Amino acid sequence: MPAQDVTAYLTQLLESVRGLDRGAPHDLPVHADADTDLLAVAVVDVDGQVWSAGDAEHLFPIQSMSKPAVYGLAIEHVGLDEVLRHVDVEPSGDAFNRISLDPESNLPDNPMINAGALVAHSLVHGPDAGDRFERIQELHSRMAGRELAMDQDCYEQEMERADRNLALAHLVKALSVLPDDPHDVGDGYSRQCSLEVSTVELARIGATLAAGGVVPGTGERVLAREATQQVLSVMLTCGMYDSAGDWVSQVGIPAKSGISGGIFGAVPGRCGIATYSPRLDAHGTSVRGELAFRRLSLDLGLHVLRPRRPQG
Amino acid sequence: MPAQDVTAYLTQLLESVRGLDRGAPHDLPVHADADTDLLAVAVVDVDGQVWSAGDAEHLFPIQSMSKPAVYGLAIEHVGLDEVLRHVDVEPSGDAFNRISLDPESNLPDNPMINAGALVAHSLVHGPDAGDRFERIQELHSRMAGRELAMDQDCYEQEMERADRNLALAHLVKALSVLPDDPHDVGDGYSRQCSLEVSTVELARIGATLAAGGVVPGTGERVLAREATQQVLSVMLTCGMYDSAGDWVSQVGIPAKSGISGGIFGAVPGRCGIATYSPRLDAHGTSVRGELAFRRLSLDLGLHVLRPRRPQG
Amino acid sequence: MPAQDVTAYLTQLLESVRGLDRGAPHDLPVHADADTDLLAVAVVDVDGQVWSAGDAEHLFPIQSMSKPAVYGLAIEHVGLDEVLRHVDVEPSGDAFNRISLDPESNLPDNPMINAGALVAHSLVHGPDAGDRFERIQELHSRMAGRELAMDQDCYEQEMERADRNLALAHLVKALSVLPDDPHDVGDGYSRQCSLEVSTVELARIGATLAAGGVVPGTGERVLAREATQQVLSVMLTCGMYDSAGDWVSQVGIPAKSGISGGIFGAVPGRCGIATYSPRLDAHGTSVRGELAFRRLSLDLGLHVLRPRRPQG
Amino acid sequence: MPAQDVTAYLTQLLESVRGLDRGAPHDLPVHADADTDLLAVAVVDVDGQVWSAGDAEHLFPIQSMSKPAVYGLAIEHVGLDEVLRHVDVEPSGDAFNRISLDPESNLPDNPMINAGALVAHSLVHGPDAGDRFERIQELHSRMAGRELAMDQDCYEQEMERADRNLALAHLVKALSVLPDDPHDVGDGYSRQCSLEVSTVELARIGATLAAGGVVPGTGERVLAREATQQVLSVMLTCGMYDSAGDWVSQVGIPAKSGISGGIFGAVPGRCGIATYSPRLDAHGTSVRGELAFRRLSLDLGLHVLRPRRPQG
Repeated sequence: MPAQDVTAYLTQLLESVRGLDRGAPHDLPVHADADTDLLAVAVVDVDGQVWSAGDAEHLFPIQSMSKPAVYGLAIEHVGLDEVLRHVDVEPSGDAFNRISLDPESNLPDNPMINAGALVAHSLVHGPDAGDRFERIQELHSRMAGRELAMDQDCYEQEMERADRNLALAHLVKALSVLPDDPHDVGDGYSRQCSLEVSTVELARIGATLAAGGVVPGTGERVLAREATQQVLSVMLTCGMYDSAGDWVSQVGIPAKSGISGGIFGAVPGRCGIATYSPRLDAHGTSVRGELAFRRLSLDLGLHVLRPRRPQG
Repeated sequence: MPAQDVTAYLTQLLESVRGLDRGAPHDLPVHADADTDLLAVAVVDVDGQVWSAGDAEHLFPIQSMSKPAVYGLAIEHVGLDEVLRHVDVEPSGDAFNRISLDPESNLPDNPMINAGALVAHSLVHGPDAGDRFERIQELHSRMAGRELAMDQDCYEQEMERADRNLALAHLVKALSVLPDDPHDVGDGYSRQCSLEVSTVELARIGATLAAGGVVPGTGERVLAREATQQVLSVMLTCGMYDSAGDWVSQVGIPAKSGISGGIFGAVPGRCGIATYSPRLDAHGTSVRGELAFRRLSLDLGLHVLRPRRPQG
Repeated sequence: MPAQDVTAYLTQLLESVRGLDRGAPHDLPVHADADTDLLAVAVVDVDGQVWSAGDAEHLFPIQSMSKPAVYGLAIEHVGLDEVLRHVDVEPSGDAFNRISLDPESNLPDNPMINAGALVAHSLVHGPDAGDRFERIQELHSRMAGRELAMDQDCYEQEMERADRNLALAHLVKALSVLPDDPHDVGDGYSRQCSLEVSTVELARIGATLAAGGVVPGTGERVLAREATQQVLSVMLTCGMYDSAGDWVSQVGIPAKSGISGGIFGAVPGRCGIATYSPRLDAHGTSVRGELAFRRLSLDLGLHVLRPRRPQG
Repeated sequence: MPAQDVTAYLTQLLESVRGLDRGAPHDLPVHADADTDLLAVAVVDVDGQVWSAGDAEHLFPIQSMSKPAVYGLAIEHVGLDEVLRHVDVEPSGDAFNRISLDPESNLPDNPMINAGALVAHSLVHGPDAGDRFERIQELHSRMAGRELAMDQDCYEQEMERADRNLALAHLVKALSVLPDDPHDVGDGYSRQCSLEVSTVELARIGATLAAGGVVPGTGERVLAREATQQVLSVMLTCGMYDSAGDWVSQVGIPAKSGISGGIFGAVPGRCGIATYSPRLDAHGTSVRGELAFRRLSLDLGLHVLRPRRPQG
C-alpha cells in the first residue's frame, strides 16, 4: 500500500471503532479524568516510516506497556538463564484477590503479570533503585526517540494504591526470588509505570522489537536479537491477560495493553503498532483499541501464523 | 477417674508417644535450637483442677496457638457481625507460595490461617498498635494465670522473616479488609506470636474456652459465652490445617497447633488439654502431640460427636 | 420441656419460617412439580419419642440424605480403613463444571459429595448391584420404621440426567477407586436416591445416628457405634456443601440436605431432627429448612460445641 | 540449503539426540512394546519436497496428533463460530485426576486436551459415528498421501482404558456441549487415535497445514485457509501440554505430540516437520523428539517470532 493509502486506512479504522462506547477509564484519578473521546492509532515499520491517525501525539502513562522492554533489559543485564531462574514464561491468570506463584517452582508465572514484572524490574542493573529507574527510562527514551519523563501525579497515585504490588513484592521476597528490598522495588516499579508516551512513540517501541532490537530510522541497537525474540514470545502468549488463546488465534500479534488505555504490538520483521483510547473492558484492556487491533491484523494480513502457499 | 489415676495415665501416655522420632523442629532459630527430648501433657478441667506429666512447666513461644483467643477478643471488641465482615469461617488451605482470599467475598478464609489472624489482630481495640498488643497480652495472662512475657529472640527472628506475613497484610489492606497499617499489624502480630507459655498454661487457656469464657478456678469471665462458642467452632473445622475432616472424625476436639511444637484443645463443658514436643510433621504440627491427642480422645471419650444411647 | 410444649414450639417454628418465599424447587420434574406450600418439621429423641408439626407424613425422595447411612453401611461391610482407602473425609467444593479428586490421593474428597457417595454405594456388599440396593433399602427401612419404596418417576428422571454422575463414576473407575462397573453403580445410586421418606421418618433416621446406631423405640442395632461416630463427623464438616464452617459455627448440628427439600440432622445422645420445604437456595438447600435448623439449634441449645460452666 | 545438505543435517541431528536415554514408552501395551531404538525425523516443504533420516517409514498410532486436523475438520463442517460455542482456545492444564471445564463458559479449555478433542470429534459431520470416523480417516489419508488404516490392537487397548475419556464425554454431555452419545463419541475417538502413520506422513500432514490447507505436491485443497490458521494458532499455544510458554519462547513452532512418541509441527508458509522416538517424558512428550525440535528451530531459523531487520 502506498503511504497515503495507509494514512487513509488508519483514519477510516478509527472511525470504524469510534462508535464503541462500552467500558470506562481506570479509576486511578490520572486515568479516570482522561478525555474518553481521545482516540489514536500509529504504525511504524522496521525502516522507521511512520503512519498515524487521531490524537497520536497525546501523552499518557505507559503503565504495563513498560513490562516488555524491562523484561528485555533484565535479559541483557543478567542473561536469559538467570532471568528464567526468577520468572517463568507460562500464561496464567492473576486475579486481584489471589496472589499465586507456580506451586512447583515458586516463580511468578510470567513477566507480563505484576509479580513477574516486579521481579524483572528488580533484575535490571543498579547499583541502586535510582540507577535502575534511570536505565529503564533511558531504554524507553531511545526506543521512543525522545527523552521520556515521568507523570508525577500518576506516580503519586500509584504509590497511594501500592498495597497489592507490595504484597506481591513481599511474597516473591519471602520465596527468595526478589534480589532487593520490596518497598524499593515497589517504588521503582511505580516510577516505571508512570513514564509518559504518545501513541506514535509506543508504535516506535513496538517497531524496535519487531526489528530485533534496532531502533527503526536511527539503526541504533538497544537490545540483542535473542532478548527481543524472548520478549515477543512472552508478549504473544502472556501479553493480553485472561484470553491468551483467543488473542493468538484471532489477532496473532505479540502485544501488551496498559490501564491508561494504550495497546502496542510488534509484527516481527514488519512493524510496530499502537492504539490509544481510555475506555477499558473488564480485563483492563482498551475496548476500541482491541477492536482496532483485530481489524488491523485481518485487513493487513499481520497474523504471525498466517499460512501461505508457495509463491508460483 | 480419681486424680492420681489421671496423672498415671498421662505419664503412660507420654511414654507411649516418646518412641516417635519423626519430624524436626521448625527452622526459626528459636525453635530449631529447642531440646527435642522435651515432652509434656497437661489437662485442666472446667473446675480448675490440673493434671500434668513431663516438662509441663517449660516455656515456649505461643505462636499460632494465640489465634483462637485473639479471634475471641476481636469478637468482644467489635462484635461477631463486624468480625465476619472481615474474616470468613471456612476451612481452607493456605500454601506458602499461594496467597488466596475468597474469590467472592475477598475475605481471608478463616482466622486460623495467617491472613485471617492478621485481620483478627487488627480488629482488637487500640487505639494504637501498642495498646492492641497489651490487650492481647493481658487476655492471655488472665487465662494462663500468670503475667506472660514476650520472647525477644522469637520476636526479632519473626520480624526478620516477616515477608510472607507482610505480603498477606498488604493484600488484605489492598482489598479494604485491614483497618490499619500493614507493617504495624505485622509487627504486633509478631509480638503476639512471641508470648511465652507453658504446657499447663496452654491447657488453662483451653479450659477457659471449654468453660465458655470463665477462667477455671478464679471464676473470672474473660470472654462472652457466644464468642467462645464461635472460637471453638472455628478451631474444630480450621484449627489443624490441611486435614480438618481427618481431625474432626478421628479426634473430634477443637484444637490449635503452633510451630513451637505445642497443641492445645478444649472439650466444651469438660476440660482444656495441651501437649508439647518440638518435632513437627510436614504441616507444622507436633508429631508426638498429635498422636497424644488422638489417644486422649479415644481413651477418655472426648470426641464431641460421640453418639450415646439413652441412660437407663 | 413437656411434650405438648415441644409440639407447640415446632408449630410456632414453622409459622416463623413460612414467610420466607425465596428459592425454587429443583428442576427435576418430580421436584419441580412439588407443592411449595408443603412444610414440615419433626424431632425424634433417642428414646423414640416423636414430635412433629406441619406436613410431616408427606413422602418425598430421599436424594442426598441417603448418603450418610450408605457411608455407614459401607463401613460396616468393608471396615473403616478400607472405606478410607476409597473416599477421603475432607470438606471441599464440588462445582457442577468441575470434577476433582484429591491431587495427591486421587480419592473423592468426602462421601457427602456425589463422587464419594458413588464410591461408598459401590462398597456396600453385593454380590451384585441388585443386592446392593436391597441392603441399602433395608437399612433405611429399619431406621425409618417402615418398608420404604422407590419413587419410580424420580428414578427414571435421575437416569435421564445421569451424565454427571456417570462422568464421576468413570473418573473414579479410571483411578482404580471404584470396584464395580460405572453404569451399574450409577443405576444403583439413582435407585438409592429415589427412596421415598416422610419428615418424621427422616428424623427417626437422624435419631438412630444420634443414638449410636440403635433404632429409637425398638432398640434394634443397625450400625456400630464407631461407624455412626464417623458418619456424624463427616456430616458435620461436609454435609452442608459450600458453607461447612458457617454451618458448624452457626448451627453446630451434623446434618445433610437433599434437593427434594429435606434436611435431617442428629444431635449425639439427644435427638434426630428433620425439616421439609421444597424451595431451595443456590446451593440446593431448603431455604425454610435451613432457617428452621438455625432457630432449633439456638432455641433448644443443640450446638455440639456449646461451652458449659461446671454445674454448681 | 541444497537438498543433500538437508539430508545430511537431519542425519547428524538424529545422532546428536540419540544419546538421550531418559524416559520410557507409554504403558499402553501397543506402545510399551515399541522398539525404543527407533528414531526418525522428516521435513516436507510447502512445495512437497521431502527430506528424512532414520526410521522414517516405520508406522505407529497417531494418537493425539490427530487432534489438529480433526479440529480443522469440525471447523469446515459446522463453522468456526459454532465450534467456538463448544470448545474454547485457552491454554490450560488437564491433570489426570482433575476434569475441569471453564468455570464461566462450561466449555473444554481447548481442542488439544482430551475433553476438547472429544467434542471436536463429535462435531465432525456424520450422520452417524461410523461416517464420522470415515471422514476423519479420509482427511488424514489425503494429507498423508496414502490410505491410512487403524491399528486394531491400539483401538482395543484404548477401549479397555477408556474410563477417563468416558468421564470427560459424560461431563461435556451433562453440560450440553456434546451433540452425541458419550459412548459412541468415546469409541470413535479411540478409532481416530489408532490410525497408523509414518514420520514422513506426519510431516506431510504438517506441511498441509503450513501451506494453508493445500496438500504439498498434489495441490489438492483439503481444509480452508482460515480453518488452518485457527488450527495452527491452537497448536502453538495449546499443543505441548504444560509448558505452552516455554515451547513458544524456545521453539516457536505450532506442534502437537502424541503418546506413541511422535511430534509434528508446521511452520506457516515453509514446511511440516515430524519426529519419532518412543521414550516419553513426564508430560507424555518424546524426549528425543522435543530436543530435535528445539535444535531444528534454532539451526534452521524456524521460530515464527524471529524478529528481522529490514533487508538492505
